[in-house]
Amino acid sequence: MDNANWFTEVAPEAGSAFSLKVSKKLHEEQSQFQKIEIYQTEGFGNLMVIDGFIMLSSRDNFFYHEMMSHPVLFTHPDPKTVWIIGGGDCGTLREVLKHQQVQKVVQIDIDERVTRLAEQYFPELCESNNDPRAELKFIDGIQWVKQARPNSVDIIIVDSTDPIGPAEGLFSKDFYQDCFNCLTEQGIVIQQSESPLFHMHILSDMRSAMKGARFSDLQTLFFPQCVYPSGWWSATMAGKNDLSKFRQKDAGNKKFSTNYYNSEIHLAALAQPEFFKQAIKVSEV
Amino acid sequence: MDNANWFTEVAPEAGSAFSLKVSKKLHEEQSQFQKIEIYQTEGFGNLMVIDGFIMLSSRDNFFYHEMMSHPVLFTHPDPKTVWIIGGGDCGTLREVLKHQQVQKVVQIDIDERVTRLAEQYFPELCESNNDPRAELKFIDGIQWVKQARPNSVDIIIVDSTDPIGPAEGLFSKDFYQDCFNCLTEQGIVIQQSESPLFHMHILSDMRSAMKGARFSDLQTLFFPQCVYPSGWWSATMAGKNDLSKFRQKDAGNKKFSTNYYNSEIHLAALAQPEFFKQAIKVSEV
Repeated sequence: MDNANWFTEVAPEAGSAFSLKVSKKLHEEQSQFQKIEIYQTEGFGNLMVIDGFIMLSSRDNFFYHEMMSHPVLFTHPDPKTVWIIGGGDCGTLREVLKHQQVQKVVQIDIDERVTRLAEQYFPELCESNNDPRAELKFIDGIQWVKQARPNSVDIIIVDSTDPIGPAEGLFSKDFYQDCFNCLTEQGIVIQQSESPLFHMHILSDMRSAMKGARFSDLQTLFFPQCVYPSGWWSATMAGKNDLSKFRQKDAGNKKFSTNYYNSEIHLAALAQPEFFKQAIKVSEV
Repeated sequence: MDNANWFTEVAPEAGSAFSLKVSKKLHEEQSQFQKIEIYQTEGFGNLMVIDGFIMLSSRDNFFYHEMMSHPVLFTHPDPKTVWIIGGGDCGTLREVLKHQQVQKVVQIDIDERVTRLAEQYFPELCESNNDPRAELKFIDGIQWVKQARPNSVDIIIVDSTDPIGPAEGLFSKDFYQDCFNCLTEQGIVIQQSESPLFHMHILSDMRSAMKGARFSDLQTLFFPQCVYPSGWWSATMAGKNDLSKFRQKDAGNKKFSTNYYNSEIHLAALAQPEFFKQAIKVSEV
């Protein structure tokens, strides 16, 4: 492999690496918060990298964005208000706005540059940014949630980078307690929860922190994500009520198109691998 | 990335690559049929590579081996005889033999060297090779199936390499017709069917060939497989009867341990992603 023509992300914790063949570096900058690079790849469309970690590609971001939005939206009985913490590429925002009953979505990403670059290099993800229901804020999401009034939002989607650097505080019990406080009675928070194969300890810690914040039900969703370490990813929902049921009929009759998600995939994503069951049985007694 | 310390497999069709950090090359040989390499890796245990393609690692082979065996065995109402075409590493054989009602398993791999090296470097996969119900043959699986008598086996598991080189004939309508002919009345063949993200055309062609061989139902199973291209893999069952139902109660009360498979995962693996539904709707009209 000729390193010069490839972007490679090493997962040192697993001794593995994933590479994409690049035809051109389109952009590189050090923003106030992080280093952002954009590449044109041969087989995956455009690629965004933050601090050396792959964030998304044009080709396969649909798995992540659909699974961070549609399952939680079809689990809540009547989602009207949604906050997205992080999510600066606007792909999650686009999916959330496909739900007609949603009246207001606030996206709170600390780094405006991510959004400005997404508008330029991933315009398809930003096509709903001017929807009158959408509001984009470029401030600290942790502070936003801490200062929010009780009972003010139905769903919080935490679409963040890994739990190191600026996103570390998003994986803590304090943060989940703040989420709990500002969520409405049937409120749900969902957060990306890393690779079940490589990062089971992070997943377990996150689930424990969510339980410690008084959420009464947790459900982890599993889905493929080619460009992330191990090619397999997860998101975990924490709710004030039972999360195993969802509006299956509405999901089956959804009025918008998706590439991965449908009601069968929703149900399937809730199935827990045997090793996962064993791991959480030990850590969540 | 220092190439000298990594084994890398490039997927040229996608412009991607997956690498594992290796601490030592344990073995390399050119057998009568293919080049076989064994590496010790830092994070994935031992690694077997054939003709430059990753076959399996100690760490994550359980996904593949469990999904190639338990779903099809719990779908058949009463599996007594099983043939494994390929599968020389013996990992599928071990899983099949966990089913107590199975009376006879014949593994037919053309290359005895794969099995001898598996015995040495993946002994855990070979722990059932001496089971009195198991028979290991080192002959051509395509010929074996062609010459078999009608009505002679309940399940055929095609655990082969990619559809290039020696395994090419295992992806053809002729081969599936031979399978159909030697399967019993409720018989099922299952074959690994590549990555749904990278190889949808192979998957479509395989399904068309299976339909052309008069199988009345097909079901594709989806599962994670970190070391294979895209990190996401599939297997496709072709049966003489409906395959959407399975012995769910038996699977739920299985008397053996697994690492990934359970009855919920079985059901989940049958869920078809939206893009897959669209692709087969177009190709299987």
